[in-house]
Amino acid sequence: MVQYPQIDRTLAALADPTRRGVLERLGRGSATISELAEPFGISLTGMKKHVRVLEDAELVTTEKVGRARRCSVGTHRLDDVQEWMKTYRRMLDERLDRFGTLLERTKGVPHAQ
Amino acid sequence: MVQYPQIDRTLAALADPTRRGVLERLGRGSATISELAEPFGISLTGMKKHVRVLEDAELVTTEKVGRARRCSVGTHRLDDVQEWMKTYRRMLDERLDRFGTLLERTKGVPHAQ
Repeated sequence: MVQYPQIDRTLAALADPTRRGVLERLGRGSATISELAEPFGISLTGMKKHVRVLEDAELVTTEKVGRARRCSVGTHRLDDVQEWMKTYRRMLDERLDRFGTLLERTKGVPHAQ
Repeated sequence: MVQYPQIDRTLAALADPTRRGVLERLGRGSATISELAEPFGISLTGMKKHVRVLEDAELVTTEKVGRARRCSVGTHRLDDVQEWMKTYRRMLDERLDRFGTLLERTKGVPHAQ
């Protein structure tokens, strides 16, 4: 089985509504940790942890500006996750097609060429 | 901020290579817990835990058949996750477009009408 450490980190980072909210906020422009924390009503320490998880997943980049840390969306475009999901759905569709063929044969109806 | 408890469970369930491998395996046909555990080289207890996480996320359904538990892919088609990712990427693209416009203006090149 192929291991995807990066896709694991991406999916785990996205599996939290605050972290998805941070990405949506940063999509509109960069922000400091305290600018991010305030609308979510969470502590600076809590927001720092969320940002660290997003940074490890390469979804966010941060830069020290004076005494603040400015966060921006990273370059990660979720291609790996979307690719896996497309492959999975294709497999499900093919499986449903096979079931359909089987059902038609069971009913004695010839399968469309 | 909108809360998505189901999408959280889906993403967390997918953030593990064994669980994604189980879904790929079940996409080819249903299997018992022990048939799933063997190729992954993990214990029955370990596989039961993975299957429970997938079941909670509605990615897998299980059914007791005699003394075994047979697992199949669920009806969850990842629409919510794919929809969020599409919206996020659209936002990133729009942001890049705005940057492009800004750069062109900075260089004194008229922006295309």
